[in-house]
Order: sequence, then C-alpha cells, then structure tokens
Amino acid sequence: MASVVYDIIIVGAGPAGLTAAIYAARRKARVVVFEAETVGGQITKTPLIENYPGVLNISGSELAKKMQEQVRALGVEIKIERAVDIWKEGEGFVVKTERASYHSKAVILATGVQSKRLDVQGEEKFIGRGVSYCAICDAPLFANKTVVVVGGGDSAAKTALLVADYANKVILIHRRDALRAEPLLQDRLFANKKVQVIWNKVVEAIKGENLVEGVTLRDTKTNEKIDLPVGGIFVEVGGIPAAVLARKLGIETSEKGYVKVDKHQRTNVNGFFAAGDVTDFPLRQVSTAVGEGATAAISACEYIGK
Amino acid sequence: MASVVYDIIIVGAGPAGLTAAIYAARRKARVVVFEAETVGGQITKTPLIENYPGVLNISGSELAKKMQEQVRALGVEIKIERAVDIWKEGEGFVVKTERASYHSKAVILATGVQSKRLDVQGEEKFIGRGVSYCAICDAPLFANKTVVVVGGGDSAAKTALLVADYANKVILIHRRDALRAEPLLQDRLFANKKVQVIWNKVVEAIKGENLVEGVTLRDTKTNEKIDLPVGGIFVEVGGIPAAVLARKLGIETSEKGYVKVDKHQRTNVNGFFAAGDVTDFPLRQVSTAVGEGATAAISACEYIGK
Repeated sequence: MASVVYDIIIVGAGPAGLTAAIYAARRKARVVVFEAETVGGQITKTPLIENYPGVLNISGSELAKKMQEQVRALGVEIKIERAVDIWKEGEGFVVKTERASYHSKAVILATGVQSKRLDVQGEEKFIGRGVSYCAICDAPLFANKTVVVVGGGDSAAKTALLVADYANKVILIHRRDALRAEPLLQDRLFANKKVQVIWNKVVEAIKGENLVEGVTLRDTKTNEKIDLPVGGIFVEVGGIPAAVLARKLGIETSEKGYVKVDKHQRTNVNGFFAAGDVTDFPLRQVSTAVGEGATAAISACEYIGK
Repeated sequence: MASVVYDIIIVGAGPAGLTAAIYAARRKARVVVFEAETVGGQITKTPLIENYPGVLNISGSELAKKMQEQVRALGVEIKIERAVDIWKEGEGFVVKTERASYHSKAVILATGVQSKRLDVQGEEKFIGRGVSYCAICDAPLFANKTVVVVGGGDSAAKTALLVADYANKVILIHRRDALRAEPLLQDRLFANKKVQVIWNKVVEAIKGENLVEGVTLRDTKTNEKIDLPVGGIFVEVGGIPAAVLARKLGIETSEKGYVKVDKHQRTNVNGFFAAGDVTDFPLRQVSTAVGEGATAAISACEYIGK
C-alpha cells in the first residue's frame, strides 16, 4: 500500500473531527479524516440547532455541510472508511480501515457516541420496521400514526416535536417524573397538542408481526405493566462513547467509558488525542466539540513539531 | 437599589460570555451580561475569522453581532457597565459596576484578555497619536505611511496584512527569528509585497513631536540599536488576562495570571465560574471560548439547581 505518512489522522468527521481538520490544515499539517458513516456525525440527526453561537438556527445537516465545505476548501481529504483498528508502530500510529492501513505521527480520536439501545425484547427485530434511532431520517414514515418516543433529554424532546409534525399522536415515555431537556424545549413540548408525556415508565417489550404494533410499558414505581398500541418507536436514551479502538490501544477511559483527556485533549498515550463527545468533558454539544477539536489539533501539531 | 437577585451574572460579552448567556437563558435562568467596552470583545478587532467551524469567513464584528442577536432574541439584557468589584455575600455574589450593585446566585467571569503594552518610552504618550492596539479601528488612518507592527502571532500577522491595505509599507518587527502565526497566514504575509519582516528586534522607544515619527529598535542578539522613521506603530504582542476582580475575590490563577478552572469551568470558589480567554485553558480562540461558555452556563445552572 501507499507508504505516505500523515502528520495527523483524525478518526471521525463530526464537529470535533472537522474542526480539528480545519486547525491542523491551517497549520499545514498533512492530515486525513476517516468517517465510518455520515460526515457531520450525530448532528446530522438533529433537525434544528439553535444554540450554536453565531448561527441563529440551522439544521444539523446544513451545519455539517458548511463545516465540511470549510475542511475541503483547505484541501483536506475526508475518506468514508470505517477505522477498525489502531496501533502504535515505532514513534507513530497505524490506523487500519476496512480498505487499507494508514500511517501517521499523531492520531485524534473524534468518534463521538453511538445511540444507546433499550435492550428490550423486540427491539433488534423491529429496527427499520418501526424502531428508529433517527427521527430526521424516519419521521415522515409515521404520518398519521401513533408513535412513542423514549427518553427525557434534549434529543428526546426535539425528536418528539419533529415526529409530531407527521404523526397523529406522539407519546413521550420517560422513566422519571421530570425531563432533563432544556426548559425552552419543554415549553414547546407541553404546548404541542399532539404530544403527551407519560411519566415514570420504561419500555419492557416491543411487539408486532412484521411491523411494530405496540409496546409494553412498566411503571418504575408500581411495576404495573400496560400495553400500548403504537405504530412506531423512536429511541433517544443517550449515547455510548465509541471508544472501543481507544481501549484496545490502552487508552484510559472513565467509568462510563469516555476517553480521559486533559485540558490539552491529550490522552495517556503520547501522540494520541481525543475530542468531542467521545471524551470525558462534561458537556456534549456542538459548541464544546469545536473547542475540543481546535485544541486537539493544536496539541497534535505541537506534538509533531508543526 | 433594585433588590432583584439574578440567577447568574455574566461579566464580559465576548464569545464566551455571549455563549454562556445563550445556554443559561435556554435553561430559563435569570441572567444578565455586563460588558465594559465592546460587545464581542477582542474579536471585534479581528478583520477576518476563517477558522470558526460552520462559518467559512466572517469579520469579527459581524460574528459578534450575530451572537449578540442570538442572546437578545432570548430576552437577555446586555448592560454596558464596567464591573469594578465582585464579592461574596451570604450564599451569593454582589457585582458592583460603575453604576450600581447587582446580586446573583452565581457568577461567570468571561472578561477575556487586554492587549499587552510594550512598556517602552513614548508608548503611553503616543496612544491615539500613532500608537494603536486595534488595526481594524485605526488602519485607515495610516494611508500611504510607513507603519510598524510588533509581534509574531496570528494577531500580528492579520494586523500587518490589514494595515498593508492602507499603508505604503508595513514593517513587522519580531523578537525571534520565526513567527508563531499560522503558516497559512505566514504565506500571505511573505507574499505581500508591501510587508517586510525584520527579525530579532524589539522596540526600545517610540519617538516624535506631536505624532509618532520613528521607533528605536534593538537587536536581540547583538544589542545593536537602529532608528527607523515610521508614521505609526501597531502593538500585537498578546494579552493579559483580565483577572483582577477574580484575584481580589480569592480566585486561584496560574503563574501567568489566568483563572484556574476545571473541566466544568469551576474555580476554587463555589458558584464562581470562568470561561474564555481569561481561563487557563491552553487555546484562546472563538471555537474554544464558545465551548467554555456553554459548559460554564450549564455548570452554573446545575449549581443553582436549574
């Protein structure tokens, strides 16, 4: 294969990875970005971003597009190849993708989080048949149906609001008696006549023949079970850090599996940096991802002497 | 005076403070922002920002305007009042400005940095008479003159390029033999025929009658002195953290005077947070300021139970 050695390989093309690419390229580092799925990452699933400073409101996919253009304008290549392994070789690193192996002096891991599953009966079976983890992808499929959204954070609230544009009725299921979502989003949610919130319930099972036909809920206080006939279910119960490759390499992670970094976005392995949702910084927002990405790039450039 | 108690007082309306305001307001915290000088802070002195992700290129003042609009749309008041003292009172804080005293449960300090002075003879005397710390404010005044820019970082490079649009000749004076500025900016600098770089020199004195007429340079290696006839001097030698109010309150600062914060933007005083250029995070960019501002707001909201 090609014997090119990159200065920096960035794994993941969400806001953190793309920002790292901008900063590294402006420092004239030789850089490449690998993305396993969609350029933009999780934000491409977000219908509306209103809290990215300087941009009053924008869809996640539009913001991702703008960041991508900025990266490409600097001549950085974004390769749609899933990284499957990373190891140290001499002073540098080898990143192995599905297609080839690539060498670099430094690595920035910006792989973000994956949608958490409910891990209940029927979930796996009905993925694509009524079970969805992406409202912006699938909401239009549920026109005039009754749909359940599971979760209590910003993503769940946004998903419920988006799905309500299509569905006949949206039932938000939350395991506690209060939402974590921004109060501003909660206001909109409670004001929406199509949306009903059911508190203190978890989904126990997803049922149907070929398509989802209903869910079984359990009350978290009384353990009482009820069956609800619904045509679909959107799962928005948070993310799992995509840190498998890091752990394999001996990178330290937090109890919840996030990559431990310092203020310079350094991990415990020299030359290996991390940025964005995959790290143990407390907030997971576009605003914080871009800051971490910029810092990781500058730290990596300093590490390689650029 | 008014007995209103704010949830959060934000001191400083640069990108960090404005972002904190956005996040706090969306959490429905009762919040006010104080700004001593210009809404937008240091970025209003930046002619062109090309590394804020999602925005291909924008002037600093235009970006500041957009952030300000976003804050105002959320109903947050930005008061142009200089904070002159902050102290603890009971569980909360009092922020005293030139006009009045304000009470809050939490404070976010986002005061940024002030332009560093050269501290040489003539500097103070000629401020506004040929000595400037803001190219975007003053560059047009130097049409067809020979002008010196002092510094070696991004700001110095951008300043030299901007001043070259007006001046006849721009001489960049740097104390070392290499610039710290982004290589991309260096390329532009070296390609600009109006710009000359003089290495290993510091300014020893600024001379003239009523206006700047010349500077005395000293070679940092040979100590040789030379006089240079120039019509103006732009000083871009970095910033000093505006942390006086914090230190008075007993907030810990780093050796260089930056406010020490953890990953939650907490200081050593409960309820007192800091974000942006004033903190000891290593990078000072719009990208990092917005991340810190968002995190500070969420941490402050959690602190006050919002």
